Amino acid sequence: VLVTCVHIWVKKEHIQDFIAATTANHQGATKEPGNLRFDLLQHQTDPCRFMLYEAYFSAEAAAAHKLTSHYQKWKESVGPWMAKAREGVPYNVVCPAERSEW
Amino acid sequence: VLVTCVHIWVKKEHIQDFIAATTANHQGATKEPGNLRFDLLQHQTDPCRFMLYEAYFSAEAAAAHKLTSHYQKWKESVGPWMAKAREGVPYNVVCPAERSEW
Repeated sequence: VLVTCVHIWVKKEHIQDFIAATTANHQGATKEPGNLRFDLLQHQTDPCRFMLYEAYFSAEAAAAHKLTSHYQKWKESVGPWMAKAREGVPYNVVCPAERSEW
Repeated sequence: VLVTCVHIWVKKEHIQDFIAATTANHQGATKEPGNLRFDLLQHQTDPCRFMLYEAYFSAEAAAAHKLTSHYQKWKESVGPWMAKAREGVPYNVVCPAERSEW
């Protein structure tokens, strides 16, 4: 299992737009066959700061996400709302070790 | 639902010690009544860099974790193995919005 944490900084005036667009992307992503999690988090004291927690069974499944229409739509929508470039951090999962625990 | 992302940098010679101690903490934490997730991740290209993804139903449940014996044991063990102080980043969960989806 692989996780990408995507750190995103949104312009204050577009926070609600960003949440709406990313909720739609979350709903699409969690229906993808290789997806395990697609959590959207907002920083507790800096409402402009978000993190996506994207867990997939494999690199192929993660790559397939970027070909979906919900991802493409999200990417085009949110670009102008970001205060700076987003940063993706790639991890391997140590725990839970078993796929069945996800 | 609240999530804390704990960023941890481990001394190279203690990576395996850290994984063993944190796996034990994971096993204890995921049995806590208020715990939703306690994922341990290792950076794909920097094996000294880890992240804990700790999701709890409430601030009270997250605080209760720090009173458990498995957390206390973990904290004492891993302290000397860290290359620098760990950093916890607190988030509120936007998606999944329903507790039943966790």
